[in-house]
Amino acid sequence: MAPAPPLLVVISGPSGVGKDAAIAELKKLALPWHFAVTATTRPPRPGEQDGVDYRFLDADTFHKMRERDQFLECAEVYGRWYGVPRSQVREAFQAGKDVILKIDVQGAETVRQLAPEALFIFIVPASFAELAHRLGRRDTETPEEADMRLQVAREELSQVSRYDYRVVNREDCLQQAVEEIEAIIVAEKCRVVPRVVQLFY
Amino acid sequence: MAPAPPLLVVISGPSGVGKDAAIAELKKLALPWHFAVTATTRPPRPGEQDGVDYRFLDADTFHKMRERDQFLECAEVYGRWYGVPRSQVREAFQAGKDVILKIDVQGAETVRQLAPEALFIFIVPASFAELAHRLGRRDTETPEEADMRLQVAREELSQVSRYDYRVVNREDCLQQAVEEIEAIIVAEKCRVVPRVVQLFY
Repeated sequence: MAPAPPLLVVISGPSGVGKDAAIAELKKLALPWHFAVTATTRPPRPGEQDGVDYRFLDADTFHKMRERDQFLECAEVYGRWYGVPRSQVREAFQAGKDVILKIDVQGAETVRQLAPEALFIFIVPASFAELAHRLGRRDTETPEEADMRLQVAREELSQVSRYDYRVVNREDCLQQAVEEIEAIIVAEKCRVVPRVVQLFY
Repeated sequence: MAPAPPLLVVISGPSGVGKDAAIAELKKLALPWHFAVTATTRPPRPGEQDGVDYRFLDADTFHKMRERDQFLECAEVYGRWYGVPRSQVREAFQAGKDVILKIDVQGAETVRQLAPEALFIFIVPASFAELAHRLGRRDTETPEEADMRLQVAREELSQVSRYDYRVVNREDCLQQAVEEIEAIIVAEKCRVVPRVVQLFY
């Protein structure tokens, strides 16, 4: 029996829902997945490492790559650019590895157009109040930035119906969300009719 | 957010593939699932307990229930009758519990007609040779019975395309199959568009 073809797993959700934390835990599972490293023009936050959390690029380099169509998708969010290099997805797929893409809702929509057979997972908070609480306390932002994020998050949450799976990230219960994401990927590898992501690069 | 509706999980596969062993391991997980106990007119095998492994009924009692339409599905296999009492599924669903049905391929087909929104999992061997090996050594059967099972198993295996998920039960690797079945159920509870089993009783 042939092994299941590699999956393109899109993990998205509103700002502040805990996507980064979930990804950090998923990495600890040491499964044979490739975690795509997004390129960005935003400066690193404290503790973030180049090539691990993000690929930090200057605007000039980023836009040269953009002109050469070297991103699977890229977008401007809050005045900063983010993009997923095509080369990463291509190389991981050629090695037979599933690719995990952590991406915002806007980016997920672009990937959905390019690769509708990708697997779309949406992380939601247990309640909007919980999300608002988390957004309010992120200390790297101004209150205006937090307000804008909250409004955007509300719109983003309404997009859940465009996803295959919804995972609830309850306050202090990240581990359950991580286990559910792992279960979804394990389950999808068992599908009788596999998702075959067409080569879009 | 409302909890996901209860699932009707059909676990099937060819004779000898290890359905019983997989179910025994799933029960140890102590998750809030109801394992349907199939009623049968066949005599208990050594170690089997009435009401746990099967509900052992005499032919008269079984056929009275059958006449009253009290089985979700029932069928004659190798001269013995097997049936899933409707009452069990109804009561578990009313309690909000997922129901796990271990059932042969013929029975799964009947359930598919009644409840196409059920979740269908097919256990397969790593190879046909492995299955033949297992069937050959079941010491409660005559060689003729084993031969008949082998032929039936080959036909049953060809039905995999009618299922949602395929789980490989590799020799000496039952635990992986069990983990995959658990993952499938966990994942299905996260579906944005849930399977809603219509009440067919």
